[in-house]
Amino acid sequence: MEAGQVSSGVRERPSLRPLWDARGIAVVGASDRPGAVGRLPIQFLQRYGYAGGIYPVRPDGAPVAGLTSYPSIGAVPEPVDLAMVMVAADKVIGAVREAAAAGVPVVIVCSSGFAETGEVGQVLQEELVATAHELGVRVLGPNCIGTVGTATGQVSSFSPLFSGASTQLVPGGLGFVSQSGALGYGAVSLAFERGLGLGWVVNTGNEADIGATEVMAALAEEPGCTGILGYAESLGGLDSLAALAARGIPVAMLKAGRSDAGARAAASHTGALAAGDKVVDAALRRAGVVRVDDIEELLDVGEVMDLVPGVRGKTVRTVAIVTTSGGSGILAADAVEAHDRHLQLATLSSETLAALDEIVPAYGATANPVDVTASVMSNPDLFDQALTAIAGDAGVDAIVACFCVLAGKDVDDVVEALARVRAASGVPVIVVRTGADHLAPEAAATMRAAGLPVFTTPVRGVRALAALAQMVEHGKRQRPDGPSGVASPPVRCGGGDRPGGQGGPSGGVGAGMDERELKTALAAAGLPVPVGRIATDRDDAVTAVAEAGGRAVAKAVVPGLLHKSDAGGVVLNVTVEDAAEVFDRLAALGGQVLVEEMVPGGVEALVGSADTPLGRIVSVGVGGILTEVIADVALRLLPVDRADVEEMIEETRLSQLLAGVRGQAPADHDALVDTVLAVAELTATLPAGAELDLNPVTVLAQGKGARILDAALALPQLEQPEHDIPDQIAGD
Amino acid sequence: MEAGQVSSGVRERPSLRPLWDARGIAVVGASDRPGAVGRLPIQFLQRYGYAGGIYPVRPDGAPVAGLTSYPSIGAVPEPVDLAMVMVAADKVIGAVREAAAAGVPVVIVCSSGFAETGEVGQVLQEELVATAHELGVRVLGPNCIGTVGTATGQVSSFSPLFSGASTQLVPGGLGFVSQSGALGYGAVSLAFERGLGLGWVVNTGNEADIGATEVMAALAEEPGCTGILGYAESLGGLDSLAALAARGIPVAMLKAGRSDAGARAAASHTGALAAGDKVVDAALRRAGVVRVDDIEELLDVGEVMDLVPGVRGKTVRTVAIVTTSGGSGILAADAVEAHDRHLQLATLSSETLAALDEIVPAYGATANPVDVTASVMSNPDLFDQALTAIAGDAGVDAIVACFCVLAGKDVDDVVEALARVRAASGVPVIVVRTGADHLAPEAAATMRAAGLPVFTTPVRGVRALAALAQMVEHGKRQRPDGPSGVASPPVRCGGGDRPGGQGGPSGGVGAGMDERELKTALAAAGLPVPVGRIATDRDDAVTAVAEAGGRAVAKAVVPGLLHKSDAGGVVLNVTVEDAAEVFDRLAALGGQVLVEEMVPGGVEALVGSADTPLGRIVSVGVGGILTEVIADVALRLLPVDRADVEEMIEETRLSQLLAGVRGQAPADHDALVDTVLAVAELTATLPAGAELDLNPVTVLAQGKGARILDAALALPQLEQPEHDIPDQIAGD
Repeated sequence: MEAGQVSSGVRERPSLRPLWDARGIAVVGASDRPGAVGRLPIQFLQRYGYAGGIYPVRPDGAPVAGLTSYPSIGAVPEPVDLAMVMVAADKVIGAVREAAAAGVPVVIVCSSGFAETGEVGQVLQEELVATAHELGVRVLGPNCIGTVGTATGQVSSFSPLFSGASTQLVPGGLGFVSQSGALGYGAVSLAFERGLGLGWVVNTGNEADIGATEVMAALAEEPGCTGILGYAESLGGLDSLAALAARGIPVAMLKAGRSDAGARAAASHTGALAAGDKVVDAALRRAGVVRVDDIEELLDVGEVMDLVPGVRGKTVRTVAIVTTSGGSGILAADAVEAHDRHLQLATLSSETLAALDEIVPAYGATANPVDVTASVMSNPDLFDQALTAIAGDAGVDAIVACFCVLAGKDVDDVVEALARVRAASGVPVIVVRTGADHLAPEAAATMRAAGLPVFTTPVRGVRALAALAQMVEHGKRQRPDGPSGVASPPVRCGGGDRPGGQGGPSGGVGAGMDERELKTALAAAGLPVPVGRIATDRDDAVTAVAEAGGRAVAKAVVPGLLHKSDAGGVVLNVTVEDAAEVFDRLAALGGQVLVEEMVPGGVEALVGSADTPLGRIVSVGVGGILTEVIADVALRLLPVDRADVEEMIEETRLSQLLAGVRGQAPADHDALVDTVLAVAELTATLPAGAELDLNPVTVLAQGKGARILDAALALPQLEQPEHDIPDQIAGD
Repeated sequence: MEAGQVSSGVRERPSLRPLWDARGIAVVGASDRPGAVGRLPIQFLQRYGYAGGIYPVRPDGAPVAGLTSYPSIGAVPEPVDLAMVMVAADKVIGAVREAAAAGVPVVIVCSSGFAETGEVGQVLQEELVATAHELGVRVLGPNCIGTVGTATGQVSSFSPLFSGASTQLVPGGLGFVSQSGALGYGAVSLAFERGLGLGWVVNTGNEADIGATEVMAALAEEPGCTGILGYAESLGGLDSLAALAARGIPVAMLKAGRSDAGARAAASHTGALAAGDKVVDAALRRAGVVRVDDIEELLDVGEVMDLVPGVRGKTVRTVAIVTTSGGSGILAADAVEAHDRHLQLATLSSETLAALDEIVPAYGATANPVDVTASVMSNPDLFDQALTAIAGDAGVDAIVACFCVLAGKDVDDVVEALARVRAASGVPVIVVRTGADHLAPEAAATMRAAGLPVFTTPVRGVRALAALAQMVEHGKRQRPDGPSGVASPPVRCGGGDRPGGQGGPSGGVGAGMDERELKTALAAAGLPVPVGRIATDRDDAVTAVAEAGGRAVAKAVVPGLLHKSDAGGVVLNVTVEDAAEVFDRLAALGGQVLVEEMVPGGVEALVGSADTPLGRIVSVGVGGILTEVIADVALRLLPVDRADVEEMIEETRLSQLLAGVRGQAPADHDALVDTVLAVAELTATLPAGAELDLNPVTVLAQGKGARILDAALALPQLEQPEHDIPDQIAGD
């Protein structure tokens, strides 16, 4: 593999490449004691056939594992691209300085005793980073187990995995990047055991300097890289991942800390600020990363990454299930429906059904799932014909072929037919074989070699196919505004930094605004607020009610009066006749009187925007009194376009509510989409940390628009009370 | 194992026992041709050490696999408990007659060509069943692959699994019952491969006579049976399963056909009527059966069944996670939260935390998940101390211990400490080892032998623990009304069989009732309906409004007028003053005028009951216009008690709505519970097939009760129009 060759330097060397393809490696803190961590990488480099130079470094210069050692890196006479530092924490910075002095560009700091141990370690880690920046050295770790370049046999790691008597490196096109060392190499051992080839393995540890996403981006530059698998507890730098996806390198990630408890544990483990899990979802989705929930699922997705180039530009959505086991077919159908966001059962054409009827006996089934029965399977020609008919159906994007105890010659026949049809049709084929490995020890390898990923159960096979569908879909959805589409709009820091300031330019949205001022600013930004204004006196109130359409809501605007309704500060159904009397009543509460049009009932949505550690997001979901009950909100990182917003609404029950439930008329879907887009645009004028919450936004009948009944703007540091405009409709 | 011995007959022989423990087996349709299905069971019985008699039966009496064959079963001179019939479909009934004549009590019909092939086969199958009933012979199958008694080496099956060169039977306490042959034996092969012992395997095929649940009940009678795993596409006879759970034999089942597509495929595969998936959930839950979604999950649950007796009577809910891998700990915490219906992270006591602080270094973590770090792990005493402290915490019900690449002596140390602490404390311990098997080939077996089930990933380990929690919980929740609690109340078949009849006794609920009659009947059954009655004339309308509290809803009751609101047939807020005028207006529509109290706004619920293939159910959920949007309904098979109904409400968002959202006052939770219980009781008076749908049931403020605003009763065959009483509150 080309990636494995030491390049001659014509092409510029990616700065991280020595992590998996170094010309020479110095091991600082080397030891000759059997089992010592300072001996293991040296032993592993020798055992797995690393062809570069291995240079133990230890003060006394005594030999290690039969190799000459050196008193310092500078004393090594050959080029050294990578130094592994395995000394006590307080000696690490000295070792990094020594490496830099010797011209070593990349250092793996394996030593622990840094940020993971608490404040003192954190200070030491910051000093380490500062030193690295000062000297222009890149540092992986600290507190990491090292890296592997499979093609070069570079096991620059001390994971006990590589001590295993039967451990073999399994080369392949996948990169594997993990923040966790133990779990990461555990997963690598499982990948190798199942024959899933990994070209590159990197454990990033504390990520003081080099982060997981930077490593992923660098791996994607390696010739032969077909995809990347990652395990992360904290996320950053997702822009670079989006670029990978855009270039057709699929990425799947297990982001731990989905739950509150898990997120707390992750934060205490890595010290990283946790973004809410829905934000993580949105960020990974935007970056085109497939998110998984378990280690086995991560490896399962790795099994199908090879298929991505073959279906690029096509769609993977409709699935035909072919089986000799009715039970497996049913389970596969269940699984397809469970992944209905990405997959659906194909409807076979009448031609296909007719062709299958000729082949499949009466006790089989030709409807999808197609149960070809064991008798067809035992006749390779018939099986081939059936597969060919299915793969040739224009309504079939992918095939899931399910078998159970498949042994002996049956395996060869099945593989042959599947591989032939797959090659001829270009249709991706996922194989499920629910049976012990020992019944057909070569089956998995044979199938993998034929481009047929194989899984133990229908659930796992279909789940991997759904991931393939996601990867293919993302490849097709690149935005006109660039490959990543992740860059947030420029966020102007204004009001947020000026306590008490009005924030933003004249007419903008800012801090310290009262309800009417905020609504006026929203209106100026193109957002639909109820017609209305402050009435200056009794006569003006009458005029204002007339302006609002003759039927109005009157509200007391009193600083600090949060629960207006309870205080009698809201009067519904005010007419021209009683406007003056109502004005007197509300004015008596000691503030101004706001008169607004009476908005009829509609679908109550919420629209918002907020800053998160992963960027600014916009959200839309079910609002009003159901906000917490349904808790059904979709969110996306900015920027968003109309298609994104349509998709967000579709993801929530808003789509049903807007379509009209129980005989209600359809609501003005487009007006809600416009409102979300306007909020997304408005966010560019909001200071960092601002949180805008419009809830409820009442979406009226089709053609009648939407109205923002309640709006709140929270700014950091200002502790501004949120505006609380009670629901006009509730009538409390 | 005792189960494996041929009993002397002192204890009465369960009628199905020959399926796994026959004294002699006749194979009808035996063949000497290598690979023939008529030879395989004979070969397998020999290979796996079956000690009973093996009697090939073939017309020509030629030897088979070196054994003497017989021209008929009757010619066999020794006792025959079991006949395997492997002849063409049209000869099967003759073979069954022959078996019966020879006094064979149980026959396995392996032959296909019955109901699975269509109508002709269905007729043949019915004839087979009739013959079996007539002769008093029990029939397994047809269209099945046979059975296995592991302890006796009775492989009365022709599954290719048993041809595998490395296949070995792994005895154990679990029974495995599958409707599907191919998938079932595929799963068995996976169980044996991972060392999960199965004492009994039965493939039920078409289930013409013997069904899966009957087999499960029979297996539970076997000494040494610790639990049962099942795969089913259709369900029946769940009462017998409930009895098992009550006796402490846990049952887990993979019921395929969860999705619509899957259910259709299952129906076409087995011809069985599909009950809705939520009904299947309710039925399995009532029977105490753990439902799983995948074959691997089924086997994973099998791994923890052994633990059930040890925790019987206790609770398994709070989980302490102990790990040497921060990442695994986070994933385990995520998984615990994902199973929050059954599990939660334990809060460690201050004493435990103090003890751990003494042991765990600073870079570990003592909060749950407890990251003891590799340094503690490498010191068996410290690890033991940490475990002991955790297991001794009264707030810890179970421990999940997560490791990664665990090899060599580490495995022994870990197992020793975990086993010791587990034995001393009685706290169940689940082990997760995310690493290749070859790194510690004996690890799984060593751990299993020590009562420590081991899983590859935290997600799988915690999922299995959640199943254990369910099994233990069910064992504790046996009902006072008997071990099963499944028996439905007697359903009186009445109105449903009498087209046009009034159904039920005087005062009961029946067909042909108009809105007021139905509500009166509901009221008579103790259900809360709005105060109201038919007003006979203008003056009476005034009286009726006064009776209803002076503020009423008036409705036209006109046969066939379904959309009253649209037709102006509903007037809200009727007072004594305008009652007469409103009466005139509604009476002009041509029917009667119903005057009901005006029910204020409240939480809208739905309450219903219906018959399903698995029994009669009662349901409660979010009602009103949100019914379809939220689609959040809990259901249970009858009977239900107050605790069940509380639990049903808790399962849905009703619990939040009733508690009061966005500042609303709490609603009358108890009134809703009473309503559901009254409906459950009322169902005893409803004919078979009746479907009662109360929606909305408005639940008022605490102490104010609930009111059934709309009620519909559907009866089979009558095609009666449903009553449609519009929501009083919507005001449309």
